[in-house]
Amino acid sequence: MKATIVTIGDEILIGQIVDSNSSYIAKALDKIGIATHEMLSISDDKEHILTTFQKLQNQVDVVLITGGLGPTKDDITKKTFCDYFNDSLIEDEKVLQHVKDIIEGFYKRPITQLNKDQALVPSKAKVLFNKMGTAPGMWMEHENTIFISMPGVPYEMKYLIDNEVIPNLVEKFERPFIVHQTIMTYGRGESLIAEEIEDWENNLPSFIKLAYLPSPGRVRLRLTARGNDEWVLKEAIKNQIISLTPLIEEIIVGFEEDDSIEVVLGRKLKEKGFTIATAESCTGGKIGQMLASIVGASSYFKGSLVTYATQSKIDVLGVSKEIIEKYSVVSEEVALEMVNKVKQIMGSDYAIATTGNAGPSKGDSEADLGVVYIAIATPNKVFVERFDFGQPREKVIDRAVNKAFELVYKEI
Amino acid sequence: MKATIVTIGDEILIGQIVDSNSSYIAKALDKIGIATHEMLSISDDKEHILTTFQKLQNQVDVVLITGGLGPTKDDITKKTFCDYFNDSLIEDEKVLQHVKDIIEGFYKRPITQLNKDQALVPSKAKVLFNKMGTAPGMWMEHENTIFISMPGVPYEMKYLIDNEVIPNLVEKFERPFIVHQTIMTYGRGESLIAEEIEDWENNLPSFIKLAYLPSPGRVRLRLTARGNDEWVLKEAIKNQIISLTPLIEEIIVGFEEDDSIEVVLGRKLKEKGFTIATAESCTGGKIGQMLASIVGASSYFKGSLVTYATQSKIDVLGVSKEIIEKYSVVSEEVALEMVNKVKQIMGSDYAIATTGNAGPSKGDSEADLGVVYIAIATPNKVFVERFDFGQPREKVIDRAVNKAFELVYKEI
Repeated sequence: MKATIVTIGDEILIGQIVDSNSSYIAKALDKIGIATHEMLSISDDKEHILTTFQKLQNQVDVVLITGGLGPTKDDITKKTFCDYFNDSLIEDEKVLQHVKDIIEGFYKRPITQLNKDQALVPSKAKVLFNKMGTAPGMWMEHENTIFISMPGVPYEMKYLIDNEVIPNLVEKFERPFIVHQTIMTYGRGESLIAEEIEDWENNLPSFIKLAYLPSPGRVRLRLTARGNDEWVLKEAIKNQIISLTPLIEEIIVGFEEDDSIEVVLGRKLKEKGFTIATAESCTGGKIGQMLASIVGASSYFKGSLVTYATQSKIDVLGVSKEIIEKYSVVSEEVALEMVNKVKQIMGSDYAIATTGNAGPSKGDSEADLGVVYIAIATPNKVFVERFDFGQPREKVIDRAVNKAFELVYKEI
Repeated sequence: MKATIVTIGDEILIGQIVDSNSSYIAKALDKIGIATHEMLSISDDKEHILTTFQKLQNQVDVVLITGGLGPTKDDITKKTFCDYFNDSLIEDEKVLQHVKDIIEGFYKRPITQLNKDQALVPSKAKVLFNKMGTAPGMWMEHENTIFISMPGVPYEMKYLIDNEVIPNLVEKFERPFIVHQTIMTYGRGESLIAEEIEDWENNLPSFIKLAYLPSPGRVRLRLTARGNDEWVLKEAIKNQIISLTPLIEEIIVGFEEDDSIEVVLGRKLKEKGFTIATAESCTGGKIGQMLASIVGASSYFKGSLVTYATQSKIDVLGVSKEIIEKYSVVSEEVALEMVNKVKQIMGSDYAIATTGNAGPSKGDSEADLGVVYIAIATPNKVFVERFDFGQPREKVIDRAVNKAFELVYKEI
């Protein structure tokens, strides 16, 4: 079972937007054992779309297409479907009613012809009802390939994938098994890890593949086993994990796809009934946002005080003006003040504070670019560490955020 | 001049990470008049890479490749380069010294064989020096196509694009002209806009293309003109803008690529010497983060108080417990309290507050899913509005954030 994902839109090819749809679709396919062969982004050009369909026809089992279904002139996917499959557009009553409900009922606007045209679909296509928007999805079977067209708006595409596309694919195909196991690590680089597990890696059976997925401050190791007997695959993976774990135990945070250090941190806080808060300067609120983004975060995440300007460190956190003047705003002393104050204001058990100079230019302080102080408060102690994260800005922020999680994690 | 961008990595094809590199590269190419024909993501598989190179050979002028240059076993791009171009690896002294500086000098770790191997490059390749990491870029000319390989780590790729790839391409090629003009609008859907500018759109000359780029609460209109005389293209675009503007003047926020409503808002605040702060609940700090992400934000952005849990609205903002109990945490009254308190605490001229129920399940309040109250404080008034943003969660948050910017924007 092979699939190719196609995104249609000049806005992608000139770099105006990042294509996040393909990644969502690939993940959903992977879960049901359908391998994504390629992802492809092409232009809103009829000829380009047609030649792409021709190339993919009978080369893969499924082609999943997003984009070009909007109401405007540059949206030509539907017409191109008709040309390629030699079909014509007909009005779908259920979709038309749905469009009316959205435009007249929800947005309280008179319905336009462009709105009505959203209800036109190729006569041979199975309509995939789009509860989240006005553009329906389309399922077209042609020779040995299924062409599935979805809107490019992410939450509409996601609704169709979860509620229409995946269920239909599961029903239609017998699929081989793909078993993934992710090992989440933190605080050590991929080449060091590779050295430590070299012998183990060399002895992996041929049907199991290892991938290193590094991002600042963390490396995900991913084992992938392919075969026809799910039980055999799972056993094989389980045994590999048993032999791998002792080699890098001290840096493993978890074995779930979403066991990023902040998620595991959140879980530990929740288990123990502890709460956490942040006071952020150079990290601009990113530590808090990552904590807040976890489902159920409100049970342990009190909130964050993003004191961006120096003055707001004084006004909001109550850091003393004297300390800032004496030691500068990027200093051990200010970081400690920040963490103590936020812990007190938020009434949390743990707290994180950051102050640094992410660059690209020197801001309110004379600190070198890349220098960040991270202070941690726990129920029974407070400490601060100085880091030099180099440049560029985004790397400094990412590494500061991850280092902060790492420092707290060890304390819980 | 046509280019194809290729990302190599199973982690992309199984949806574990989103490919943001291609978008950055495409934008850089577009700026110098090189059109991206396609973007392609393929697996870490030697055969797959080789057949892709064969397909692209002589089909496009430039192939830009990211990924597969790491130090570990699943990184095979370099070896595959040697196979395809029938070359062998040699050690580059400058790169080796650089790797030593990073590992031994910066990370203070003994250098490993895997680290040293990073300095091996195909003998026929021009080395693109990667100041940001250990993996060098490679520039290989073969028949009518240039193959450029870069690491997949975003800030390393960006460094190579800006400092090596683009300068070399500019020097090597005569390029046609591409002129883009973006019109940033807010608060009106794409089909309504399309109706209003239909006649104008129908009369566009054939060498000018219009694209609609909708995202929650805002639509970007993009005009693209291609040709050989830059002056002619610019004049034509200028004249089209002159005839378009009166048709939708009231919803235009700007004409720059980055004139998103928050950027224009920031600019207006800066000009007038006003400051702003936010108190956020259901938006989880996103409004503040978007303000903080703008360069120079510290001159007008005081900071944000992310009072995630109900209790922290009381502890941090000092919202009265009685009001929360009487009207519930998702209410006009609480939103007004929040905005007044944060304006006072932060000492800002303007303030935004949000409280709502983003879903998917009902949280601390009985409010319907999708209901959000947004309160705005200006130097001389305070007001609140109730919105029903429906579902899903991400749509509610995005629309609340954009609506908040829209409400403040009108007041400045």
